[in-house]
Amino acid sequence: MIRHFTNLHEGGQDGLLNLVERALALKAGKLHGRPLAGKTVALCFMNPSLRTQVSFEAAAASLGAHPITLFIGQGTYALEHREGVVMDGAAAEHVKEAVPVLSRMCDLLALRCFPEGKNWAEDKKDPLLAAFRKYATVPVVSLESALGHPCQALADLMTIKERMNPKGKKFLLAWAPHIKASPQAVPNSAAEMAALAGMDVTICRPEGYDLDGEVMARVKAACAAAGSELVVTDDEDAAYAGANVVYAKSWGSLQNYGVPPAASLTSRKITEAKLAQGDDAIFMHCLPVRRGLKVEDAVLDGPRSVVIDQAENRLHTAKAVLLDLLAANTREELCPTSSAH
Amino acid sequence: MIRHFTNLHEGGQDGLLNLVERALALKAGKLHGRPLAGKTVALCFMNPSLRTQVSFEAAAASLGAHPITLFIGQGTYALEHREGVVMDGAAAEHVKEAVPVLSRMCDLLALRCFPEGKNWAEDKKDPLLAAFRKYATVPVVSLESALGHPCQALADLMTIKERMNPKGKKFLLAWAPHIKASPQAVPNSAAEMAALAGMDVTICRPEGYDLDGEVMARVKAACAAAGSELVVTDDEDAAYAGANVVYAKSWGSLQNYGVPPAASLTSRKITEAKLAQGDDAIFMHCLPVRRGLKVEDAVLDGPRSVVIDQAENRLHTAKAVLLDLLAANTREELCPTSSAH
Amino acid sequence: MIRHFTNLHEGGQDGLLNLVERALALKAGKLHGRPLAGKTVALCFMNPSLRTQVSFEAAAASLGAHPITLFIGQGTYALEHREGVVMDGAAAEHVKEAVPVLSRMCDLLALRCFPEGKNWAEDKKDPLLAAFRKYATVPVVSLESALGHPCQALADLMTIKERMNPKGKKFLLAWAPHIKASPQAVPNSAAEMAALAGMDVTICRPEGYDLDGEVMARVKAACAAAGSELVVTDDEDAAYAGANVVYAKSWGSLQNYGVPPAASLTSRKITEAKLAQGDDAIFMHCLPVRRGLKVEDAVLDGPRSVVIDQAENRLHTAKAVLLDLLAANTREELCPTSSAH
Repeated sequence: MIRHFTNLHEGGQDGLLNLVERALALKAGKLHGRPLAGKTVALCFMNPSLRTQVSFEAAAASLGAHPITLFIGQGTYALEHREGVVMDGAAAEHVKEAVPVLSRMCDLLALRCFPEGKNWAEDKKDPLLAAFRKYATVPVVSLESALGHPCQALADLMTIKERMNPKGKKFLLAWAPHIKASPQAVPNSAAEMAALAGMDVTICRPEGYDLDGEVMARVKAACAAAGSELVVTDDEDAAYAGANVVYAKSWGSLQNYGVPPAASLTSRKITEAKLAQGDDAIFMHCLPVRRGLKVEDAVLDGPRSVVIDQAENRLHTAKAVLLDLLAANTREELCPTSSAH
Repeated sequence: MIRHFTNLHEGGQDGLLNLVERALALKAGKLHGRPLAGKTVALCFMNPSLRTQVSFEAAAASLGAHPITLFIGQGTYALEHREGVVMDGAAAEHVKEAVPVLSRMCDLLALRCFPEGKNWAEDKKDPLLAAFRKYATVPVVSLESALGHPCQALADLMTIKERMNPKGKKFLLAWAPHIKASPQAVPNSAAEMAALAGMDVTICRPEGYDLDGEVMARVKAACAAAGSELVVTDDEDAAYAGANVVYAKSWGSLQNYGVPPAASLTSRKITEAKLAQGDDAIFMHCLPVRRGLKVEDAVLDGPRSVVIDQAENRLHTAKAVLLDLLAANTREELCPTSSAH
Repeated sequence: MIRHFTNLHEGGQDGLLNLVERALALKAGKLHGRPLAGKTVALCFMNPSLRTQVSFEAAAASLGAHPITLFIGQGTYALEHREGVVMDGAAAEHVKEAVPVLSRMCDLLALRCFPEGKNWAEDKKDPLLAAFRKYATVPVVSLESALGHPCQALADLMTIKERMNPKGKKFLLAWAPHIKASPQAVPNSAAEMAALAGMDVTICRPEGYDLDGEVMARVKAACAAAGSELVVTDDEDAAYAGANVVYAKSWGSLQNYGVPPAASLTSRKITEAKLAQGDDAIFMHCLPVRRGLKVEDAVLDGPRSVVIDQAENRLHTAKAVLLDLLAANTREELCPTSSAH
């Protein structure tokens, strides 16, 4: 049974909290040596990245592993993932070969693959990530897919825990304007993370911008299990009131899939004035962020912002994920007091 | 005298067999430590790759060396290789500088350079690889050029030896359909490898798709030296009959150089029915493979296929090549019983 | 106080000479072990490179650090550096996030950023490099910017010192033809380097091709401090006469900024005949060099040329820079006799 890390829900609350606990221990310098010496990790990118590539490369290297970063289709062959097709187009290689081959040469495969943005029913199947899981014979890590960005969620929860006990605090996921119809991966994972961490979750979005129903069902179930509140609203005043965490992100409408947000929605920009309505709220964003468009400069440059810490914590949580999948024996060294996970 | 690994014929039968023997020992875990610690290897790509980049990066790293992967002309300057020209075009750097410079900074240079596909007489000179050999002051490895793909051939023979004693067995090189005029490198090296390994060699190709005459002269000589049979035919039934190894590959015609194969040749697709005519034949392909076009899915997904093993063996043979050129002292450790090579 | 290495003038003569002295010690093999083990270095490229990427990757790896090479805008997000803009264009990330984030994940940031070539007044502000310095919380190294190429200058001086005591020797910076308006970075740093090394400096360029005034003011001051001569001339015969070092480079006019040199200037090509007017002159060029256009083949292939040594010395000086910024404690090991720098 190969273990993967491609979403939050398979590991559940325990999985999430344990990885964050270990990342905090790694940040505190509690691991010595190069436990992944001799191992090779393939980082496969279909889409751009900064934090993800650098954090996983740096994490792998510092643990002794060798990272191989591949920009799929540039330098490597374009990949086909549909079954049973006659491959007479641009794609020269099928995942049915590429993934087993990488599995033989590397100890772990990580994949970033954004949605196409044309058909949500197709995109939400996460076909390439699903194919990696199906055909890999080594652990697979999602570096963001259509449905989620679990590595970001780990860093997000770690950053929250550095500042507060999340249990019972108010987490506001605030929709932000953009010139494009952005993916739902980050808001999906942020909402799931906050719910699993026992926070009250408020999602403030324009009408027509609800998150996917299956994701919301998991968020609802996690809030119910924690006895916390879940609110979905279009009322910004009510949403910001008393918030402890304001997590800004733009995402496209699933109803008008692929269509950029209306220009009138630019008033949804995150501002200092809005943040001031919270309860000494911290400001979070996964980055990159389009300054002036999604968020006022004053917010990003001000004392509420923890976005750089979030990014730094990508490094520590990447180490935690790599160790969990490739060197499970380091768990005890990192968290000697934790129970038998 | 710098030793290079850019073709099979310079090393001859002994060179080929010894590298494969060492690769088998490496796969069996017979080498310890990091014999290439402190060394740097430059991997220069003019063309896409998956197995080649990943196998050489992983091989170098696991032996302690640092691999530097360069996509020539993307990130680096485009290279000129013609002598005596006024460089007033797109190429900003000449191999007469680039190769000596890389030789000063790195311990080994590897190059992938496909043919242009316009003029075989020019392409078969392998001008860029020849320039690397001419101007390098460190060992050069071919990662596939117009004339051959010797690293693939090492992995191929290793894969065959894992399943049978190749001596006297029937090796069928089977031409396969494609939408493009593919290079001859892989079929050239596969035929040479099989002949050097003492196999009976059958090449089944449509009329007009003969391999280069100089390559065929070497194949013929190797078969003669081994006392084995060489058959070139267009009769698929006779070709498959009794085959122990079916090695599929598409290649373009040298007579109609650069012209894609006629649509009527799609009947040459490799099928289970054809394979069944062999003598419990294994199916080989260097990958990537266009499913449905060159080969039926059932072949690739069936038990005869060893294509993933072939790919894995690229890793072990890459290690053998690097060690041979950079740490000759590891030979005895790997193959203590082999004679004084 | 973070120390950076983004120009020659901040470190002054002592800084320059000490780095070169340490690079010479490194080339002589006077350092053992992996003093940068566990460290990560980000190499950020906005423009192509060969020597720079390979030398810094090889230097970092050989010292034990892990290099991460990023081609900004390809694989990573395009960067905005202007303050206060609404980011509704192509750039998805601002340096105000990207640079602090990289600083948290890596121990040193290096940047190559060529000028845009439209407006010298804007280009000479080196806005991206300035932003890296402003927002980085770790050392920043320039891998060439609009104003200079200090790493190249280190290798240049090292190469001169391997052949002569530069003090009082004649350094000729000779303008060479090109099809494009090339940047001023290399000639700027070469002139500053020669002046700081106590050489007589002659700059031979066509009318209208003077270097930037602020750069020339520093060159003039350094020559004055050393008691050496500074000559700017259009007289090739006088310039070459008695030269000990001929350093060829093309650069565009600041008066007609961005405009390629007139075709009539092709007579400025560096030739064996011109070099013969010097005093047993060595020929230098930073590479890449367009053969036949800027320099005769006979010069590059002849015994006066030290261009390959210059390139090799990029490796040793890269090590010296990395050690200086990340492992200052290695100074004594490298140069035990040097005074208290």
